Amino acid sequence: MAAPMDESTLIERLVAIGWKGSRAVLVGPGDDAAVLRGGLVISTDMMVEGVHFDFDWIAPAEVGFRAGAAALSDMAAMGARPGALLVSMAVSGDPVMCEELQRGLRRAGDRVAAPIVGGDVGRSPGPAVVDVVAVGRARAPVLRSGAEPGEDVWVSGELGGAGAAVAAWSAGVRPAPAAKDRFAAPPDRVPLGVALAGLNLARAMIDVSDGLVTDARRIARASGVELRLRQALLPLDPVAGGDLKVALEGGEDYELMFTAPPGTRTRILELGQEMTVRVTRIGSVERGAGVVLEDREGRRIDPGRGGYDHFAAPPGGQAP
Amino acid sequence: MAAPMDESTLIERLVAIGWKGSRAVLVGPGDDAAVLRGGLVISTDMMVEGVHFDFDWIAPAEVGFRAGAAALSDMAAMGARPGALLVSMAVSGDPVMCEELQRGLRRAGDRVAAPIVGGDVGRSPGPAVVDVVAVGRARAPVLRSGAEPGEDVWVSGELGGAGAAVAAWSAGVRPAPAAKDRFAAPPDRVPLGVALAGLNLARAMIDVSDGLVTDARRIARASGVELRLRQALLPLDPVAGGDLKVALEGGEDYELMFTAPPGTRTRILELGQEMTVRVTRIGSVERGAGVVLEDREGRRIDPGRGGYDHFAAPPGGQAP
Repeated sequence: MAAPMDESTLIERLVAIGWKGSRAVLVGPGDDAAVLRGGLVISTDMMVEGVHFDFDWIAPAEVGFRAGAAALSDMAAMGARPGALLVSMAVSGDPVMCEELQRGLRRAGDRVAAPIVGGDVGRSPGPAVVDVVAVGRARAPVLRSGAEPGEDVWVSGELGGAGAAVAAWSAGVRPAPAAKDRFAAPPDRVPLGVALAGLNLARAMIDVSDGLVTDARRIARASGVELRLRQALLPLDPVAGGDLKVALEGGEDYELMFTAPPGTRTRILELGQEMTVRVTRIGSVERGAGVVLEDREGRRIDPGRGGYDHFAAPPGGQAP
Repeated sequence: MAAPMDESTLIERLVAIGWKGSRAVLVGPGDDAAVLRGGLVISTDMMVEGVHFDFDWIAPAEVGFRAGAAALSDMAAMGARPGALLVSMAVSGDPVMCEELQRGLRRAGDRVAAPIVGGDVGRSPGPAVVDVVAVGRARAPVLRSGAEPGEDVWVSGELGGAGAAVAAWSAGVRPAPAAKDRFAAPPDRVPLGVALAGLNLARAMIDVSDGLVTDARRIARASGVELRLRQALLPLDPVAGGDLKVALEGGEDYELMFTAPPGTRTRILELGQEMTVRVTRIGSVERGAGVVLEDREGRRIDPGRGGYDHFAAPPGGQAP
């Protein structure tokens, strides 16, 4: 057993090994999804029992729904319209569990009219693993690298609800039903993502899956800018009970964070109203690097480590 | 725990739950790969440690190569030209193992100039799981359903080598090096598959991954025909030591089986010579259903159960 390595370093190494550039690929690894020549957008998202979820937390159909919704969230973050899902499962021999997983996946696909067109199933003597591939199309995919100084930073929905559920389960407590629902049923942000891309409003976009701070850092790094977030503006989910840390670091919210020029504020707020999705301006793009969090008095506060590292976690530990 | 179910029944149920038809999908579940409108061909192939392979058998880089080659074999079977791979891994925290897996996958992709454009990685407290998505393009994909009575049945390469290796490992014996190589390094049949499709030679095609008989049954069922195979014509791999059963049922060969009109025999043999791939006529397509095997005297013999069922296997058992 070699020395442990944090997840992002490991991913960087795997990308370096696997990727060598290709004329057939417009966007390679490192964004929410890859983009092939012709506008095909494709991503894969894996969930492991005991690491990303636990069957003591949610039922198999909810696990399936969540896995499907998480995979589709990557399409939303590119402004891509999903066309199909493929599903691979490594599971115990229990066919009822497989079918419930698939029912949940189907429901997530139905929200965006994406059928399950293929997949694979195998017996696993260990934890269940569900890997979902989402395929879609985008005329002008929105990348993480498009943010420019002077733009606003926006986020959809509310933050911290799913993280609050995970925090409760991890502490051995039953979460509030609303928090559990927030974890089990991520929102469908495909219509918002497609509209933000189609109207050329969003210049950089990502889905908040690993925590607001972690995902903001990804936009900052890819765009070569600083993201300055204001604590007072963050739309905390009421079920998170005002817990700033869980909103900043909890992840699992599957909301969209995007940057847009100030001149588009009115149009973005109108779009949110048309789609009945709360959209909130939470900060600004500045020259610099990294993520800065300002408290209500404008003082810089520690934005936290942010994000969960599955590889840094102790073996057997449960966390998102 | 519900009653056990055989793998093909389970897959049929999962397909029925997930698939509802779609105008954006030309070929849905049930073939080697799905085909989306526009000619995009996509499939996913999962391998589970302790079920499909074992690290006591082959090294991580070999597991990766094999997983990549197996996924690309589905492209070959459709006559599709691969464009990209996506790789998801659920693995222990050992970064060296992840990197070796990825190196093997990269080598499999390099054979067909398909870069790894995305993926996911997560810690698994259980067995390693590698799920590989292959994406390609085909102008006229060759399906399992195109076989017609009067056509020949062909197979590429030789049969039983990989199965012989699995049989040896399962018996606690070290396989012959050639058999091990046959298991660890499936052939690249993409050029042959693309040529057979492009020249309109193959009318039905499949890759022999679950055993000749099982895969022949799939063509027979999809095409509504009988496949009559002649024992005397089967190209047994010398490393299988003339073991007919392992050639018929062993699987893991990742060769192409296809049907073609008799008028194309010369062209197919020439193509095999041009590509230095052995191609062998092993039988004929007849009116009827299922698979019939004839011995050297023309008598029907039992073609065997054929194919390995991961769900019917005893828990903890190791097999392909």
